[in-house]
Amino acid sequence: MKGLLTLKTIPKDMINEIISLALDFKNGLKVTFPGKKMVTLFYENSTRTQYSFQMAMLNLGITPMSFNLAGSSVYKGETLYDTVRTFEALGVDGVVIRHTQDVYYKDLEGVGIPIFNGGDGTSDHPTQTLLDLMTIYEEFGRYEGLKVAMVGDISHSRVAHGNAEVMKRLGMKVYVSGPEQFKDTTGEYIEIDEAVRECDVINLLRVQFERHQEAMNITKEEYLEKYGMTPERVSRMKKGGIIMHPAPVNRGIEIHNDVVECERSRIYKQMTNGVFVRMAVITMALTGKL
Amino acid sequence: MKGLLTLKTIPKDMINEIISLALDFKNGLKVTFPGKKMVTLFYENSTRTQYSFQMAMLNLGITPMSFNLAGSSVYKGETLYDTVRTFEALGVDGVVIRHTQDVYYKDLEGVGIPIFNGGDGTSDHPTQTLLDLMTIYEEFGRYEGLKVAMVGDISHSRVAHGNAEVMKRLGMKVYVSGPEQFKDTTGEYIEIDEAVRECDVINLLRVQFERHQEAMNITKEEYLEKYGMTPERVSRMKKGGIIMHPAPVNRGIEIHNDVVECERSRIYKQMTNGVFVRMAVITMALTGKL
Amino acid sequence: MKGLLTLKTIPKDMINEIISLALDFKNGLKVTFPGKKMVTLFYENSTRTQYSFQMAMLNLGITPMSFNLAGSSVYKGETLYDTVRTFEALGVDGVVIRHTQDVYYKDLEGVGIPIFNGGDGTSDHPTQTLLDLMTIYEEFGRYEGLKVAMVGDISHSRVAHGNAEVMKRLGMKVYVSGPEQFKDTTGEYIEIDEAVRECDVINLLRVQFERHQEAMNITKEEYLEKYGMTPERVSRMKKGGIIMHPAPVNRGIEIHNDVVECERSRIYKQMTNGVFVRMAVITMALTGKL
Repeated sequence: MKGLLTLKTIPKDMINEIISLALDFKNGLKVTFPGKKMVTLFYENSTRTQYSFQMAMLNLGITPMSFNLAGSSVYKGETLYDTVRTFEALGVDGVVIRHTQDVYYKDLEGVGIPIFNGGDGTSDHPTQTLLDLMTIYEEFGRYEGLKVAMVGDISHSRVAHGNAEVMKRLGMKVYVSGPEQFKDTTGEYIEIDEAVRECDVINLLRVQFERHQEAMNITKEEYLEKYGMTPERVSRMKKGGIIMHPAPVNRGIEIHNDVVECERSRIYKQMTNGVFVRMAVITMALTGKL
Repeated sequence: MKGLLTLKTIPKDMINEIISLALDFKNGLKVTFPGKKMVTLFYENSTRTQYSFQMAMLNLGITPMSFNLAGSSVYKGETLYDTVRTFEALGVDGVVIRHTQDVYYKDLEGVGIPIFNGGDGTSDHPTQTLLDLMTIYEEFGRYEGLKVAMVGDISHSRVAHGNAEVMKRLGMKVYVSGPEQFKDTTGEYIEIDEAVRECDVINLLRVQFERHQEAMNITKEEYLEKYGMTPERVSRMKKGGIIMHPAPVNRGIEIHNDVVECERSRIYKQMTNGVFVRMAVITMALTGKL
Repeated sequence: MKGLLTLKTIPKDMINEIISLALDFKNGLKVTFPGKKMVTLFYENSTRTQYSFQMAMLNLGITPMSFNLAGSSVYKGETLYDTVRTFEALGVDGVVIRHTQDVYYKDLEGVGIPIFNGGDGTSDHPTQTLLDLMTIYEEFGRYEGLKVAMVGDISHSRVAHGNAEVMKRLGMKVYVSGPEQFKDTTGEYIEIDEAVRECDVINLLRVQFERHQEAMNITKEEYLEKYGMTPERVSRMKKGGIIMHPAPVNRGIEIHNDVVECERSRIYKQMTNGVFVRMAVITMALTGKL
């Protein structure tokens, strides 16, 4: 299949080439694909990924079509494969998909147009990983030897799983932090206070607090104090260390209100970079490199 | 009213002119209407018709605006007439409408911009009929003398009703097939096994199986075996015969999974042709011919 | 903050400048902002305001992105501030917002891109006020000395509140009319029959009849007869007087069916003018004047 489904099968060199092209776009490179149309098919809520892909298309002169799940034939039981093949038959040049199902794209063999994975289940979110890498590269000029802590609900996070695999491959040391029940085999466990002291990147993750509150028997304030990013912890961060978060953030749960836009935070910069990595990925797909 | 509401009042010559223009578009004809805007107003679920009209607009340099029913003043009780007149007042150059109500457009007298019917109740779906005709014409080079079987839920199908009227007028012999309770006066009844042997076109229709299962007292497998298109029936089709379906298909009910993209199937070709007939219809409306 | 949040802080001269530019656009002035993108964020149902802003953008060569509340991270609890900042980080050049909360924009300090208020709670709807003023100015060539009656549910109407403040400032005499329980301090009370005899502008307001019917103990027919605009009242209107309504109208409640498009009605003209005032407001914001 063409496009970008997962970074797991993409060699290091290719990842570096994507980031490099994204940086070129950020520095003003202009590429256009007049007359092309792409569609965003989101089977799960999204603001950033959906509109970031649309912005990337617009910047490349591609017309985005926004598939509206409500009001579509999905409610007549049409399968994902048939929906994607329909857009292909209509003449669409690429499809961005987010879906609740892990590795949904295994059902899409036979589709001829590029597919861009906007997140699958709890498994992967390759353009999020790329924008995180771009943000890290801009900050440190390298990946090798950097320490990153994934903090929060690791086990349910496609970002944690997607990032960890690639970051390790690029020579980063990956830790995980947060409540016991969110741990999985993604990385070595580290206490949050040690993480802020030792790690170059604190990669916060969204915690679906309401879903877990009862089992954890803990208030929001206690969660923030115990596992979250407080101004006090920010003050104890390693020299040069940065805070990232895929957003949307839960202010007052995994991150204190005053930390969201503090000097160490790269949260809005990540969003800006997301447009450029998506421009890079689309460009490489439309020129046969992905 | 301008635009295309039903084919019942459109003479044969005009239908041939639309198909001919659609074929020209398929062969590369370029026509643009810079600065024009059109809106798609869908009061019923649709993937193909809605996005096919949007693709047709984009191919003609027209900006599609997608009216989102949820989030609109329709939920404040605004009538269809007032909604359409609003878009006219805003400067929109045409409106595509799908509505649950038969002949909804009789309430739209006084609207000055072209209206394109994207399906009304169980009555009509003129651009679907046109794309079916285009697909048949590409296959056989004529309509006269061809035999078509409409198979499935005839009585609730706007496609069956819309297609039958025009196909008869163009000299085709129209049969209907499927369960007894779906029969109406659309055409002469024919058993499915005779249909595949005798007919040039097997025009399958979507069956809302869940709605009828209890009354029919039948499983999906039994339905497929008794009334549906199986690989075995495909193997007994008339020489040169083709399978059409307006989609979305119900895999394993009216059509076997392996038949959807088999050599005889024109299902995805129909979708591709749909963009071209809609380009033709819009072009003729904007140049005063419809 | 940049953009247009309320007219309360906008001096008379600036209001006149906006109307003047809107009239220029109506007379054919062309201005384009190539490459710009704006997003419409509607947290409340809207047809006119939402699509009118989109038409205004298209007329200015700006690409509108339609934020679909359903399917967004708003359902993950993302705040309005974070949603708007996200679009800013993505590179969007302006945001149109409608929100149920009065003065929602007080939470948006720190946003760097222009914000256009498409209606906040029951408080304000500045572009509606501007299009009403433009319609009045086109009709009478002045504001000074004109009498306007706001008729209907004054207390819940952002249009009544927004219009009254500016109209008084421009030298108009503002009355209110309608059922006792809808009165507030917006203007001096006037009986509907006196209003049609004395006022230059009958500014009808939408009545959410179902919500109030029980308390009022009244049928639709009685409401129309007692407080609404009937053909009989139209026949007794002041010479040169006009009827306005922000729409959607409730045919048969605050306005008789035959009055909606009668000779005195400017209801569809208001919608047409709305596109031009929004073009003016966007243009002034993008050139640093708002």
